[in-house]
Amino acid sequence: GNAGYARQAWENKRAIQNLCRDLLVHRKLPSPAWPDHIVEFFLAELALCDSNNFVSNVGVGEREARVWSELVKRRNMRFAHGIGRSGTLLDIQPKAFGSSLLQTLTNDLTLDALRLAGYSKRSTASATVFPMAAGMTIAMVIRAVAQGRKEARFVVWARVDQKSAFKAIQVAGYTPLIVPLVPHPSHPSQLVLSLPHLRAILATHDPSTIACVLTTTSCFAPRAPDDLPAVARICADLDIPHVVNNVYGVASPRCAGLISEACHVGRVDAFVQSGDTNFLVPVGGAVVAGPRRDVVEQVAGMYAGRAGVGQVVDLFATLVGLGREGWVGVLEERKALFTHLHTSLSTFASAQNSRVLSTPHNDISIALSLSPLSSSSPSSSSSSSSPSPSPPLAYLGSLLFTRHVSGARVVFPGGASTVAGHEFKGWMSHIDEYAEGAYLTAATALGGTRRDVDGFVERLERCWREFGKKGGMETEREKKGVG
Amino acid sequence: GNAGYARQAWENKRAIQNLCRDLLVHRKLPSPAWPDHIVEFFLAELALCDSNNFVSNVGVGEREARVWSELVKRRNMRFAHGIGRSGTLLDIQPKAFGSSLLQTLTNDLTLDALRLAGYSKRSTASATVFPMAAGMTIAMVIRAVAQGRKEARFVVWARVDQKSAFKAIQVAGYTPLIVPLVPHPSHPSQLVLSLPHLRAILATHDPSTIACVLTTTSCFAPRAPDDLPAVARICADLDIPHVVNNVYGVASPRCAGLISEACHVGRVDAFVQSGDTNFLVPVGGAVVAGPRRDVVEQVAGMYAGRAGVGQVVDLFATLVGLGREGWVGVLEERKALFTHLHTSLSTFASAQNSRVLSTPHNDISIALSLSPLSSSSPSSSSSSSSPSPSPPLAYLGSLLFTRHVSGARVVFPGGASTVAGHEFKGWMSHIDEYAEGAYLTAATALGGTRRDVDGFVERLERCWREFGKKGGMETEREKKGVG
Amino acid sequence: GNAGYARQAWENKRAIQNLCRDLLVHRKLPSPAWPDHIVEFFLAELALCDSNNFVSNVGVGEREARVWSELVKRRNMRFAHGIGRSGTLLDIQPKAFGSSLLQTLTNDLTLDALRLAGYSKRSTASATVFPMAAGMTIAMVIRAVAQGRKEARFVVWARVDQKSAFKAIQVAGYTPLIVPLVPHPSHPSQLVLSLPHLRAILATHDPSTIACVLTTTSCFAPRAPDDLPAVARICADLDIPHVVNNVYGVASPRCAGLISEACHVGRVDAFVQSGDTNFLVPVGGAVVAGPRRDVVEQVAGMYAGRAGVGQVVDLFATLVGLGREGWVGVLEERKALFTHLHTSLSTFASAQNSRVLSTPHNDISIALSLSPLSSSSPSSSSSSSSPSPSPPLAYLGSLLFTRHVSGARVVFPGGASTVAGHEFKGWMSHIDEYAEGAYLTAATALGGTRRDVDGFVERLERCWREFGKKGGMETEREKKGVG
Amino acid sequence: GNAGYARQAWENKRAIQNLCRDLLVHRKLPSPAWPDHIVEFFLAELALCDSNNFVSNVGVGEREARVWSELVKRRNMRFAHGIGRSGTLLDIQPKAFGSSLLQTLTNDLTLDALRLAGYSKRSTASATVFPMAAGMTIAMVIRAVAQGRKEARFVVWARVDQKSAFKAIQVAGYTPLIVPLVPHPSHPSQLVLSLPHLRAILATHDPSTIACVLTTTSCFAPRAPDDLPAVARICADLDIPHVVNNVYGVASPRCAGLISEACHVGRVDAFVQSGDTNFLVPVGGAVVAGPRRDVVEQVAGMYAGRAGVGQVVDLFATLVGLGREGWVGVLEERKALFTHLHTSLSTFASAQNSRVLSTPHNDISIALSLSPLSSSSPSSSSSSSSPSPSPPLAYLGSLLFTRHVSGARVVFPGGASTVAGHEFKGWMSHIDEYAEGAYLTAATALGGTRRDVDGFVERLERCWREFGKKGGMETEREKKGVG
Repeated sequence: GNAGYARQAWENKRAIQNLCRDLLVHRKLPSPAWPDHIVEFFLAELALCDSNNFVSNVGVGEREARVWSELVKRRNMRFAHGIGRSGTLLDIQPKAFGSSLLQTLTNDLTLDALRLAGYSKRSTASATVFPMAAGMTIAMVIRAVAQGRKEARFVVWARVDQKSAFKAIQVAGYTPLIVPLVPHPSHPSQLVLSLPHLRAILATHDPSTIACVLTTTSCFAPRAPDDLPAVARICADLDIPHVVNNVYGVASPRCAGLISEACHVGRVDAFVQSGDTNFLVPVGGAVVAGPRRDVVEQVAGMYAGRAGVGQVVDLFATLVGLGREGWVGVLEERKALFTHLHTSLSTFASAQNSRVLSTPHNDISIALSLSPLSSSSPSSSSSSSSPSPSPPLAYLGSLLFTRHVSGARVVFPGGASTVAGHEFKGWMSHIDEYAEGAYLTAATALGGTRRDVDGFVERLERCWREFGKKGGMETEREKKGVG
Repeated sequence: GNAGYARQAWENKRAIQNLCRDLLVHRKLPSPAWPDHIVEFFLAELALCDSNNFVSNVGVGEREARVWSELVKRRNMRFAHGIGRSGTLLDIQPKAFGSSLLQTLTNDLTLDALRLAGYSKRSTASATVFPMAAGMTIAMVIRAVAQGRKEARFVVWARVDQKSAFKAIQVAGYTPLIVPLVPHPSHPSQLVLSLPHLRAILATHDPSTIACVLTTTSCFAPRAPDDLPAVARICADLDIPHVVNNVYGVASPRCAGLISEACHVGRVDAFVQSGDTNFLVPVGGAVVAGPRRDVVEQVAGMYAGRAGVGQVVDLFATLVGLGREGWVGVLEERKALFTHLHTSLSTFASAQNSRVLSTPHNDISIALSLSPLSSSSPSSSSSSSSPSPSPPLAYLGSLLFTRHVSGARVVFPGGASTVAGHEFKGWMSHIDEYAEGAYLTAATALGGTRRDVDGFVERLERCWREFGKKGGMETEREKKGVG
Repeated sequence: GNAGYARQAWENKRAIQNLCRDLLVHRKLPSPAWPDHIVEFFLAELALCDSNNFVSNVGVGEREARVWSELVKRRNMRFAHGIGRSGTLLDIQPKAFGSSLLQTLTNDLTLDALRLAGYSKRSTASATVFPMAAGMTIAMVIRAVAQGRKEARFVVWARVDQKSAFKAIQVAGYTPLIVPLVPHPSHPSQLVLSLPHLRAILATHDPSTIACVLTTTSCFAPRAPDDLPAVARICADLDIPHVVNNVYGVASPRCAGLISEACHVGRVDAFVQSGDTNFLVPVGGAVVAGPRRDVVEQVAGMYAGRAGVGQVVDLFATLVGLGREGWVGVLEERKALFTHLHTSLSTFASAQNSRVLSTPHNDISIALSLSPLSSSSPSSSSSSSSPSPSPPLAYLGSLLFTRHVSGARVVFPGGASTVAGHEFKGWMSHIDEYAEGAYLTAATALGGTRRDVDGFVERLERCWREFGKKGGMETEREKKGVG
Repeated sequence: GNAGYARQAWENKRAIQNLCRDLLVHRKLPSPAWPDHIVEFFLAELALCDSNNFVSNVGVGEREARVWSELVKRRNMRFAHGIGRSGTLLDIQPKAFGSSLLQTLTNDLTLDALRLAGYSKRSTASATVFPMAAGMTIAMVIRAVAQGRKEARFVVWARVDQKSAFKAIQVAGYTPLIVPLVPHPSHPSQLVLSLPHLRAILATHDPSTIACVLTTTSCFAPRAPDDLPAVARICADLDIPHVVNNVYGVASPRCAGLISEACHVGRVDAFVQSGDTNFLVPVGGAVVAGPRRDVVEQVAGMYAGRAGVGQVVDLFATLVGLGREGWVGVLEERKALFTHLHTSLSTFASAQNSRVLSTPHNDISIALSLSPLSSSSPSSSSSSSSPSPSPPLAYLGSLLFTRHVSGARVVFPGGASTVAGHEFKGWMSHIDEYAEGAYLTAATALGGTRRDVDGFVERLERCWREFGKKGGMETEREKKGVG
């Protein structure tokens, strides 16, 4: 009868409320994953805890989260007051109890996700979502760890050709001391941090003048992750803060292993990763994690103002929507995809008389030598005086771009770029002159599919052939559109 | 017949496409305003221009905007690649042409909104939305304007008791030189920047050591906006950058007037306002505007990484949803509401034997003297040795809070707070010792309603009465919940 | 402290839960109206009571509400099981307790809305939302009231030139007996049901052969609502069911008054109105109401299958979103708009040497004589043999259509149409030959605005002028598009 | 450069516009399937073709699709004018060109889906979505096919114990002539239409008095689909319309085969299926299809009024979201699931000393004998005089229901039900007395999963055991809740 139906309905509501309570208590990725309607219900319940959704609230402050557009309210899931207080992002915002709960919960879910990805417990005492790009967040971390170091003027940094990280040092207000890369002793195609250079720099500067050492894990081949344990030991010895740029390294077992080990054997203050490349959310946020809760809290305490709730909502919905099995699943898929990419490119390379550069310590990105193309390139052969691979290789990039391949990069010697006032020779190859010449990089990030890899290799083959035919001479069409 | 119906349908689609094109061409708030369905259609069309929505894209980069959750995709309106490049926020992001267009368009609409709010053309050469709190954004602006000033160590700042602005100086890496406030000569209840002190500080420091002067417009009574034209003249003379914290001042004709005049007579590098308090969007973003396009661009060039698109979407949807008339309308309503609040509080004050403090240069916030309560407060009268208003006044704040009044602040002498390592006496009153004693502030921000003001005054009356009865003795219930 | 913030958040959640409970208990339009986020929260809570949203459900039936598309789930607010059982729409559906609750609640809110619109308590014992067009619903009502009348073959119907109602008789399986209209004795421009004719028909047919009398309230001028009290008395006398087609009459005080009085003095079995024209929801549903609960239930019991939940969700969200004051407000606005339309058209008419036809008993629709155009129409004047207004008047309709005026109708003598096998002379004018000749109708429905009325009159003026110039000769452009 | 990015963005927009155009031209399920953002974009573009979304429209009709609630607008995808005209559902609605296009497109996609499911081209000349339950739609089809048959009073119907179909005959206004079922000659557990009885009925009634024969395909075991080809031949011979109730039969190869063959060898006027059980959309709509376009059009022409757009939107979004491969995929999965259910239940049955009843012609539903429970049931054994299975078996249904198993039905002899005035003995078993005694049915419908089947069998096992222990004695808890 109706009473029975009502009871069953009520049981289900209670079951869902229990799911919500369990999440708030256990603070781990749920298993099984939550369907969207439970995610939305949970968010709606939290939003009712924010004062902008109170029925009887009257506001006479300057900041009352008065959102005019219904469309905007809706896409913000009725959250409007932001997160944190002017004191620290981690404070409960009195006007936004729901948003505040959501943030701390999401921080803990992120911590769980990191541990499931292989980060040791010691390396993950705490994690916090930041509403800024990873580069901006690194700048904040640098400022936070350097807070007590009144004499600090420098940040020691192993070169990696990615603008954001380098700009972060400038934003933080420090001068970079750049440690160059060198070929790996056993794998000469692979570029690694030069520890002797690092030691030399530290020997010639008073440790008190150094804000921190900034190392990098995730990077493009032929660069490999920095030797974090070695650096961590040095930092521990010299009492210098150590910040790790792990910008897209979460899914990489190698990055996880290096960070975990470094936290065990030496000093790591915090490691920073972007939201989008690691957690399948839109661009915009970052996560700071590390072995010391106080450091993460110090960073949170530096943010001047309240944070928008967007990054937290996105990360929350994604993590509970994936659930424990889903998250582990996408990590596994990426690993398998890397193997698939490596195999596919190797097969392609041998067919083209080229080769995949040997970079065994990079399990994210792969570099394919473009030497065969460099020598056959018409324009380079015509300039007989220059035996080196020539700029028209950029045309291969154009061809890939116009065939809707994104993310592949053609790198050739001779490039240079000025970033934040510093000129980098051989820009994009992480070293002034790379012995292997021109190459192409491809990577496997979380969420990539076999369709991506197979489509890429197939289109690469067509472009390679077309490049062989036309060489560096741009067609009419290319010139107009892309040139 | 059917052909006629089809033609009419087609005409309407063309009419809407024309609206979209007009907006992209004229880049001003539309008139009439756009209904939500056109806003959504326009955003959907732009989203189709981002590579994550391409049908034939294959991605092998580390950052391909792969969003897992459909819920997350939807609430981000299918934008995922963020805005800008690692070089600068203002660059077109190759993978996100639509997002990039949206940003530059929104920047221009914001510029138009500022001009409609009374900002002179000269003061608004450029405006850019930033994906960070106003405090963080001020920090970035400080760093940007100080970029060439290698000797700079200080930021000169007229005290305002709001944590974010002060923290911004720290985040930027500078040491504050604090200019105290003084009673206004003709309106002694009103606190203003002491120009003699400012001049004295500048006389004793080499200009090259000063990163910038940071002034404030919008603030709580009894503080008044700083005398921007005077400061701007000084900054021009000494060639010192001048940054204005206009955090919730956009809707204030006084703030608009001061900024416009200052840009005319002296040096203003940029002024910063938060998104939520000025443009009726959720907390999270800020707008940098100013008389020099190069300064705004320099700030945009400092952001290390790509920005999330959320703040831009929110601001865009709100501005076109309001349209020209809607925007002017909410500005007018706020002005009228300020008058209404002033009248209501004055009436209340005279009934309670109190008074509204005279702060004629603040057209946002109003202070009501709490002297009657301070003297009658049982606990303060019991502590016979101290005739001054005593801490139990905090109980009035409690009473208002539990009656769902938000944003009203009870300020009483003797408070102190340490922000970013500096101790402020008389915290919240902007001065070490405020002669008028305890007071209560209320403000009228954009989007406030008569229901807010009337509800506030009514509940204040009840709380005032209850306070009078029970005095500082907290009831059982209050103690448990809030104490 | 945090406990205080938590308590306040919790208080608000309880306040909103109380709002929801109050609605379920009182079952009247809420005051104040509900903002969207409470509407959505309430619907989300109900949806959790349906088995398709149960976390632990396993289904092995043929009908388990398995919705594939997330987009479809979302737009159906997670309801999927429909409403009612195969027995009757009003039964609780065991798999959809939430949907079932929503339906009965919405029925009661609709009842309240009818009463606020002036329907007497006696006339509104019950109301039910149906998931079909008003015409289809009338067919169902006819079948329901005729259920025990084994000999019934006819439906007596006062002519109204609207296809759906007439088709309803056919769908129900009966033969119409058409009562013609006659000029009103005191207002000869106005057409009314001929009571003598009605009596004559009923005198010549055995009452047991008559399924019901179907009268009409809302209609286009120059027709007026039927004299319901008179018909109701006759039906009571002869024990014949009486169904009222009140298709867009809810907002008309005249229709409300006639139905209320008829229910008092005679027999009315049920009256039917469409959802969209009366309650500002999309087209698709209808409401059956009436003085006898058993009749409404009988209709609900005839629906073969479960009903979709869409119409119920739309009506619910609209009624609680409007609230009591909002609903009364839109009713009042429509009344004022009718006056405005009448005044505007009268002014226009006198300027054009035309006149508004006198139809004082129709407070929805107005007819404007087109006599001035008929005589001046070039093509009609050229066809000297035909002194009557000629078809080219249709061109005026074309002109209005292409100027985006919708809903205005040009009616001229001589038209004819065959509906469900019956030929109607003078189609659209409700009478074979209308003495006043050609006219144009316009109406004011719920949700119309002064912009509509003013825009209509302005464009009418332009079209009138253009018609005067070009007469019935279609321009090239018109011919191609509309002809 | 930027021009290149712009071109690529524009290329993608054109690619998506081409997808849309292709769909409008080819009118077949797309391959590959459309992601949600393209579905939404397409719907948004169509909605702009409806007059309620015109920017310059002014309305003075009684029906202008004025929707008050933004929430309602949004969930209706901005469609509001409904579909069709009062003449026929298939007419273009002048005020809703977009909705009209959507309907005809969806009708054609449905046709394609039917053909992919195995319906022959001949059997699928036309298909139309109806905004009513399948039962109501059957009633309309009966009325439509009987339109010219003035003498018609009866509908000949092979018994199937499902209320909607039987009520449909009543709604249509006809008297049912019920053809009983008989055991299948070779599979005596299986019940089938008695062709001799059917012939006898037709022999004793003038064909002109028969509106149509209504056969059934999809049904619960132990009933099997009617022998459609045989009936179709008879109907062709006698010139009697033949309507098929295929309510949840689309995914069944057997139903598809019977209908296809029947259309080839004899007369089928139309076959009707519900939307939700066949196309994974929410409850509320139905599809009429058949070998003759004129019949489908006649049905569409009978609908009195405009149809709501909801069912069309849901069906459209689902079909293009699935795409050709997705649709074929879910059909295949269901077939595999049926095999899995059959195997699982057979295994379970042999372990419990029971058996699956042999119903080889039903590929949707399976019946499991409950004989072991009937004999062991304490209450039945206690009533020593009655050796037959006794009502307390209902308790097994209760147990399953409270364990969140939905859709399983316990059927036992002796039940009776009165539907639309007719008493059915042995209700639910399709026959007055079923020789096999009590049984339980389970089915596999589209969208079901192995989790459903496995969860069902597992819970059944537990309930079976519990039933064995407690027998028919309800526990306290059950009595209160469900009894």
